[in-house]
Amino acid sequence: MGEIIKGKPVADAITETLKTDVESLKAKGIEPTLKIVRVGAREDDLSYERGALKRMEKCGIAAEVLELPADICQTDFVKALKAVNDDASVHGILLFRPLPKQLDMEEIKFIVDPVKDIDCMNPLNAEKIFEGDKTGYPPCTPQACVEILDYYGVDLKGKNVAVVGRSMVVGKPLAMLLLGKNATVTICHSRTSDLPAVCRQNDVVVAAVGRAEMVKGNFIKDGAVVIDVGINVNSEGKLCGDVAFNECVEKASMITPVPAGVGSVTTSVLAKHVVKACKQINGIA
Amino acid sequence: MGEIIKGKPVADAITETLKTDVESLKAKGIEPTLKIVRVGAREDDLSYERGALKRMEKCGIAAEVLELPADICQTDFVKALKAVNDDASVHGILLFRPLPKQLDMEEIKFIVDPVKDIDCMNPLNAEKIFEGDKTGYPPCTPQACVEILDYYGVDLKGKNVAVVGRSMVVGKPLAMLLLGKNATVTICHSRTSDLPAVCRQNDVVVAAVGRAEMVKGNFIKDGAVVIDVGINVNSEGKLCGDVAFNECVEKASMITPVPAGVGSVTTSVLAKHVVKACKQINGIA
Repeated sequence: MGEIIKGKPVADAITETLKTDVESLKAKGIEPTLKIVRVGAREDDLSYERGALKRMEKCGIAAEVLELPADICQTDFVKALKAVNDDASVHGILLFRPLPKQLDMEEIKFIVDPVKDIDCMNPLNAEKIFEGDKTGYPPCTPQACVEILDYYGVDLKGKNVAVVGRSMVVGKPLAMLLLGKNATVTICHSRTSDLPAVCRQNDVVVAAVGRAEMVKGNFIKDGAVVIDVGINVNSEGKLCGDVAFNECVEKASMITPVPAGVGSVTTSVLAKHVVKACKQINGIA
Repeated sequence: MGEIIKGKPVADAITETLKTDVESLKAKGIEPTLKIVRVGAREDDLSYERGALKRMEKCGIAAEVLELPADICQTDFVKALKAVNDDASVHGILLFRPLPKQLDMEEIKFIVDPVKDIDCMNPLNAEKIFEGDKTGYPPCTPQACVEILDYYGVDLKGKNVAVVGRSMVVGKPLAMLLLGKNATVTICHSRTSDLPAVCRQNDVVVAAVGRAEMVKGNFIKDGAVVIDVGINVNSEGKLCGDVAFNECVEKASMITPVPAGVGSVTTSVLAKHVVKACKQINGIA
């Protein structure tokens, strides 16, 4: 029976460290500031926003929200986002995506300066993650996975890790972060032959596919660590992950739950990135 | 005893296709043109340049070399490279690297427009490879590996592939190209535990580490395909790859030799990228 490794202690530990960091920045007259840019008022954006604002408050980070109308045109949106980017008092910018269809991401994704791009929207930032350049900001979810593994003492060096999923939001950047920790990384996906067998060869399995409970007990070798990135609704209408928890907990040495797992850590990562951005902008190591 | 799969037939096939492509471009009044920018006259650059010029000629692609003095300053170099980039008659630009130490790549790498950046120097191009965006140009060596696998009919879909090496020149971009072919990709490196065992789990092993003959027979499962990216000199002073050929050929179903393997295909990939750039610039699908 595996240990259930929750996100809250990880988030709390990050928050405590950041509080100290923020205090010493404020003592220097610098106030780390997050700006959230939201177009319209989708309930999932609002829900994440509430969590993010609460987390920033706990860390002592200033946060403001710019709400723009759902039917804003490209010209007006670009103008508004440029103004946020040019605002010297703003260190980190979070723009909720996907944007409404009338807005063209091809132009928009380059507007936020990579140093303020704390959720990896700008391709220049994504490239830093590809390269392993530590000045970049990975997307919050893969970084949250790494924070959890770090916090619970899982040394990745020389470990075999399967990442199930190859999206630009989780799978691919996570693979690069794990490589940076000297893990041997296997990237699996919908076309992988015999996925259970491939996963069983690994010491850590991260599920990031967005399919309810698709990682079964027979995917997990005895004593492996299981990280569940998914947030789905199962056939009974309950929130669940990409991992069939009841089966996998029997095999794993450690396993994250859903809810209360990876998802609980993302706003702390966001806060960490705001502080990192603030330090980089102010030339503080 | 595995089939020795050489690069030349692959290069020849690419060249034949390009010749036709180039002819139809010329019929439209468009002349695909490569510009090579070389700083100084290092023997390895000159050697590659000779091969590249010969290949372009075979394909009917125009090619010019801009040689700059080895002691050129940053300002002059930037000015020269910008002029090449702005030249509408140039479709693809190859800049030999590494550059002399007085030149700062951090500025230089952004100068060549991604659409002309046929050897993946610009981070925006590298990000396209990360993302799987087909408008990008991968570095020539990993693309050459894919061309060889394609030519010899190795269907990668659902295959397990080990990439040994995680450089930005070969390992990481190759992993992304293979993912794009729906392979399940394991990225191995110097910190991988039990590298022979990890490699043996794979249907294809690509060695790109730069260490003479380090992939031994016990790394290869019976019938696997072996691609050798390395170019080294062994203890007897002979050119050799990263693969211990005599041992691995016994196990493999197919194996590339060194020399006459992957290295023979890179200039054809370069030519292919010039034609692709020329088409993209001229809006030809």
